[in-house]
Amino acid sequence: MRGIISDLDGVAYRDDHPILASVQAFQAWHQQGVPYAFVTNNSTKSAAQFAAKLSGMGIPATAAQVFNTISAVTFLLQQRWPRGTPVFATGEQPLLEALELSGFRLTETNAEVVVLGFDSRLTYAKLRTAIRAALAGATVVATNPDVLTPVHDGYDPCVGVLTAAVTAAVPTAVPIVVGKPDPFMIKQALGHLGTSKQETVMIGDQIKTDIVAGQAAGLRAVLLASDVPFNAVTGVVPDLVIASLLDLVASPAEETGAFR
Amino acid sequence: MRGIISDLDGVAYRDDHPILASVQAFQAWHQQGVPYAFVTNNSTKSAAQFAAKLSGMGIPATAAQVFNTISAVTFLLQQRWPRGTPVFATGEQPLLEALELSGFRLTETNAEVVVLGFDSRLTYAKLRTAIRAALAGATVVATNPDVLTPVHDGYDPCVGVLTAAVTAAVPTAVPIVVGKPDPFMIKQALGHLGTSKQETVMIGDQIKTDIVAGQAAGLRAVLLASDVPFNAVTGVVPDLVIASLLDLVASPAEETGAFR
Repeated sequence: MRGIISDLDGVAYRDDHPILASVQAFQAWHQQGVPYAFVTNNSTKSAAQFAAKLSGMGIPATAAQVFNTISAVTFLLQQRWPRGTPVFATGEQPLLEALELSGFRLTETNAEVVVLGFDSRLTYAKLRTAIRAALAGATVVATNPDVLTPVHDGYDPCVGVLTAAVTAAVPTAVPIVVGKPDPFMIKQALGHLGTSKQETVMIGDQIKTDIVAGQAAGLRAVLLASDVPFNAVTGVVPDLVIASLLDLVASPAEETGAFR
Repeated sequence: MRGIISDLDGVAYRDDHPILASVQAFQAWHQQGVPYAFVTNNSTKSAAQFAAKLSGMGIPATAAQVFNTISAVTFLLQQRWPRGTPVFATGEQPLLEALELSGFRLTETNAEVVVLGFDSRLTYAKLRTAIRAALAGATVVATNPDVLTPVHDGYDPCVGVLTAAVTAAVPTAVPIVVGKPDPFMIKQALGHLGTSKQETVMIGDQIKTDIVAGQAAGLRAVLLASDVPFNAVTGVVPDLVIASLLDLVASPAEETGAFR
């Protein structure tokens, strides 16, 4: 095993609480020179903010190692729509700023694209603006499909419930969902690592996003069992199930027994 | 035709704009002594407030003639849950007040019932409270299934999108939907009129709510064609389609030609 691509929430930490064994595993890989990167469906922080959060927990990380749905969404939009296209977006400040920096015009009227990102300040008015734009024919892009996100005291509703609300009102809107299970971010991370598919693993705690995305990118996919239900998908089987990230750490002189 | 049960929005008025032919029709029925009542999925106003709105538009109406989802929801809750049951509700003030007056305790924690009503002040926090209660096993009750409601400048998202959001996050929650197409309010209105099913018609502008509910209650159902799409339901055929409520008004000396 030469390269590691890892989910964040549920693998490195849960909400703001580091998972101790995971911190130790990444520290070991850092010392051993095993390259790693992070992929997350979370669009509420920039790559630099995620790296700072990881570093603060003791996991060595830089912004270059983090791939999230903010850059994935702006990449998609830049591929398909010209600069200046009017976009209505729900989301936290880092997503909104990235859209503006990418050349799009944030607006509440006549939007051609509706971007649905996690928004803790969601209001009825924002929901109405999104639905009216979709009714008028705007393309709907969601940062990720997750309906719930685990937090320290339970679950919070995530972007998937917003997408469900919009498509309930506008059944003709078929949203483009950017994050995992789409393998795009995994492929970006693999390009950063420079390792081959065969020698790189994807680690996650959710079958329907992490494992599906990892295998779709051609990687072996490892499920870290956690107290969060992993949401089985019929027919999708992880290449390995582990109880701790330390189970993947090789002793200094040998490769890990799990993958040779 | 001896009795009339009519939808409000899309039949008597659209948003705050009276439909002139409908005003004239209800005035004629009032003068002719044809009894009528109103049924609406709208939970944002009390019966008295709806009656005042109708009177202000020139349609003679009293609170006793109006049946809406506020009383339907409180009736359902009182049938199934004891006084004092903790309830979390989204909705406008009249719904919240009616729930409290009916003996339920409004709360954001440990709710046993989640009532989803139209709420123009919906926030992420309210959505999270509803979803967390549903995750913990609360029964979900929605005032009505409508996903969009027509307003003067287009459509606004309605309760159905909120129900879609909650069930996307909690697929095991199977909401009880109180309003039309359930025939409950139609039966209440029929009881008020005191007319027989055979001689009473249900008038509405939506097949999947008004026509389905009217026919389920055993009434003939009349579709008033409007500029709002009527949302066909395969196999459900109105007993009559009209372009104006005046088409149902008999001249003083004869019955209407439409229904004998």
